[in-house]
Parts: sequence; C-alpha cells; structure tokens
Amino acid sequence: MDPQEKKVALRAITYGLYVMTGAAADQLAADGINWLSQASFEPPLVVAAVKADSTLHAVVTDSGCFAVHVLGEDQLDVVKAFFRSTSVEGDLINGQRFTPGAATGAPLLEVAPYWFECRVTDTVARGDHTVFVAEVVGAGVRDAARPPLTLRATGMNYGG
Amino acid sequence: MDPQEKKVALRAITYGLYVMTGAAADQLAADGINWLSQASFEPPLVVAAVKADSTLHAVVTDSGCFAVHVLGEDQLDVVKAFFRSTSVEGDLINGQRFTPGAATGAPLLEVAPYWFECRVTDTVARGDHTVFVAEVVGAGVRDAARPPLTLRATGMNYGG
Repeated sequence: MDPQEKKVALRAITYGLYVMTGAAADQLAADGINWLSQASFEPPLVVAAVKADSTLHAVVTDSGCFAVHVLGEDQLDVVKAFFRSTSVEGDLINGQRFTPGAATGAPLLEVAPYWFECRVTDTVARGDHTVFVAEVVGAGVRDAARPPLTLRATGMNYGG
Repeated sequence: MDPQEKKVALRAITYGLYVMTGAAADQLAADGINWLSQASFEPPLVVAAVKADSTLHAVVTDSGCFAVHVLGEDQLDVVKAFFRSTSVEGDLINGQRFTPGAATGAPLLEVAPYWFECRVTDTVARGDHTVFVAEVVGAGVRDAARPPLTLRATGMNYGG
C-alpha cells in the first residue's frame, strides 16, 4: 500500500466537525472531533473515535457517557476553542456556557444548534484512537434550520 | 428523549456517500452506504456500519474483508445503481466495471476516484446495523482533484 495514496483516499471521506464533552466524578472534558457516524436506527447507536491519550478519552472511559454537539456552518470559532485544553470557569467550558445533560451529566453547550447524549455500550481499543459505540439517550435541537459545519468547508484535515 | 428531536439532531451529522463491496467464496455483494469514518491513524483503521440483514453484511462477515469507494460529486448515478440488489455480469457489478482488489478480493470499481481495501479486526453486532472496525490494507487514487459526493448535496437522508 502506498502511504500517499492511503492518505489521499482516506481524506476523501466526508466529515462534520463536532464538540464532544464528558463528565467524570471530578472532571469535565471537551474536544473538537470529526470521526463520528450513526451506527444503528434501533436502538439508536452512534460510533465515535477518540484520541486514546486524551483527557476526554479518560473521562468517557470512566463515566461511560458523552455528549456530541453539531455546530452551525458559521461556528468554526466555537469548535476551535475546543482544540485547546479544557478549562472550566463557573458555567463556562472553554468560554462557552453549558448545563449538565439530564441523561448523562455531560456538559451541553448552549451555543450548539443540535446535540445528543450517549451511553457507551461497546469499546474497541485497537489503535491510537478508541472506537466508542454508544446508545443515544437524549437529544435536542435549538435551531433546526442551521446548516451544519463541515470539515471540508474549514480547509482543515484530520484523517489519512 | 423526544423522537423528533433525536431524528433531527442525528440527521445533522455530515456524511459522504460511498459504495462498499465484498467478496465471499462464491458471492459478490455491493451496497451504497454512508455510515463510515476513519477510526485510527496507526494502525490505519476505519469503522463502517452495515445493515445486519443485508447480503453485503453476510459477505463481509464470511470473508472478513471489504472495499470502500468514494465517488465524485457528479457520480450520484453510480451510487444509486448500488441501492438495488447486487447483479454481476462478467466484469460488471451493477453495471460498473470492476477488478478484484489485490489485498482482499473485494470488487474495486474502476469508476471511483478514491478507494480503499480493509480487513475486519473487530465487530460490534448490537443494533440493526453491525459496526465493523477494519484495518486499511490497500488504497488507490484515480483522480485526486475530484471533490467527493456528499449525502447532503443529494437531498437524501439516511439517519435519525
């Protein structure tokens, strides 16, 4: 396999850009991610791949829960704030107002037009990112008319 | 959880639209899919969710291998041909010329600008679709300048 062809082919996969959050006993964590897909209608499952050495990974592993936020096409600045280490001050996480999710306790960002809460059902820890399969147990929509942010529109890449 | 909010939130996830193929001992199979993501850089892993009662699912389960094709933005007609049952005539599968992949034997569509071959490493069979985690073992690019087909651009939905 030619490494360059592998990189170009894998980067042709289409992604959104999301903020994933979690809450363990004494710690909140949040990161920008793009490796996410639905994985079943019934039960409603999603699959997300999370960097194995990240704080978010530790928090999701500990708590067995996470939340995913879909941002609007004009909210790249919101996602970018979550490429940094997590910082919590009062009801702000990385500068964004949040409330704990009713189903999971994971921080829910008020700025996100779409979000869902998930409980991990299965974990595949095989590579530098861990695959979490999770059931969707809560969801909300604040602006159903907002087109979602896509990775391609940002000019960034994460994959290959 | 409100079912309508769940549906709208999950449909805000961004997807491409792909053709996935497989080859078992005496059978080829191919379907259009969109639930796909990379899942690790090293080793290079992807994750795909495949309808549990499909022929493609049986073929991937039997062979432990599959191929994924990323189509160009102008190739919706190609993907649509794979929403039907698989039909093979000579070197055509659903009307598209193919050759067996060197690494997996899965049919590789000549029309696709990007493709990769995968070997299944882990399976999570929890919902109406099965999650296959798989290592990328072959890849090719025929037109690196071709923008990929996205699900949103088609006006179709598969998720929610």
